Amino acid sequence: MPIAKIKQNKERRQKLLESAVKLFIEKGYFNTSIRDIIVLSEIGTGTFYNYFIDKEDVLKALLEEFADKIISSIKVYYQEETDIYVRFVETKRVTMEVFIQNEALSEIYSRVAGASAPIDQCLQQFENRLIQFYTHNIEYGIKLGVFNNIPVSPIAHSILAIEKFLLYKWVVLKAITKEEMIEMVVSFHETLAQGILKTR
Amino acid sequence: MPIAKIKQNKERRQKLLESAVKLFIEKGYFNTSIRDIIVLSEIGTGTFYNYFIDKEDVLKALLEEFADKIISSIKVYYQEETDIYVRFVETKRVTMEVFIQNEALSEIYSRVAGASAPIDQCLQQFENRLIQFYTHNIEYGIKLGVFNNIPVSPIAHSILAIEKFLLYKWVVLKAITKEEMIEMVVSFHETLAQGILKTR
Repeated sequence: MPIAKIKQNKERRQKLLESAVKLFIEKGYFNTSIRDIIVLSEIGTGTFYNYFIDKEDVLKALLEEFADKIISSIKVYYQEETDIYVRFVETKRVTMEVFIQNEALSEIYSRVAGASAPIDQCLQQFENRLIQFYTHNIEYGIKLGVFNNIPVSPIAHSILAIEKFLLYKWVVLKAITKEEMIEMVVSFHETLAQGILKTR
Repeated sequence: MPIAKIKQNKERRQKLLESAVKLFIEKGYFNTSIRDIIVLSEIGTGTFYNYFIDKEDVLKALLEEFADKIISSIKVYYQEETDIYVRFVETKRVTMEVFIQNEALSEIYSRVAGASAPIDQCLQQFENRLIQFYTHNIEYGIKLGVFNNIPVSPIAHSILAIEKFLLYKWVVLKAITKEEMIEMVVSFHETLAQGILKTR
């Protein structure tokens, strides 16, 4: 395929994804139809199906890109910071900032859980990627000998759990501000770090 | 009101609540109408409104009773166990067992989040009660001098967050067994306890 064609395809796919986010926020995920997405993105009928199977597939693509963004932001931060304690705690600030910068995606992620099996599958894929990444990082700390030899999976799950819960309190319930959200996530990890790190 | 009448009222209210749980599980919360609840409970039309304002009010009542059950189970456990470390960790086993014993309510709680503002309000009331109870218990540990002087609110939130997240993985996603769920919650609190407790 010529480069111009590939670029055009990428832009169309992006247009569809952006239109979907807009609609999912405005009308809600359940009230948005594929037809709505096609109309808003001004792309020929049928073209949608060159890129996506169905609405869940759009959600899956959005969450996949979202996980990429979160993980790559953490990786960039790792190159700047080498102190393991600071890393363990401050990574969560970096993560929550990516959630804040992508408020619409955060809201969609926080709203759709539990509604249907295909949606839950999309979410699980997203969450598993983050949990795997967190697991890998904790295992690395244990291997280096700076973390205690703790059971890793429950900790990795708890990290995502507190992020998810406070994200929901901020973006859906509006019960806390984004500053409070970051502060609580970071503060929690300061306490947790005492149970995880061998030395400070 | 004569005692017989009060008893009858209580039973009717209970019948409505039980019918609602059954329907919320079978048809889903959103697809269940007040009419469905009235029909299944075999209670005269109109009687429903003597007890509840609307469907959210039913959900609120269910979650209120659920929070009562969880808190009273923990209180009973507290009377048996006095070692603060064991308490801090094993309370979570007690809590998760209440969730397991009330699988239908756990599933409803795990499924409805994020769908609408009135529902989120019901959930928030339920969650706030648990968070307040957890907060109170941690503050008590600090006051006794057995816990470090840690920021309490982030820890109380994290406790509910991990319970909620693993509950969802068990009851909605079926990605973990109930034994794995308990094990992970307890294991996480063992690590967290190291950051919270002054001495072991």
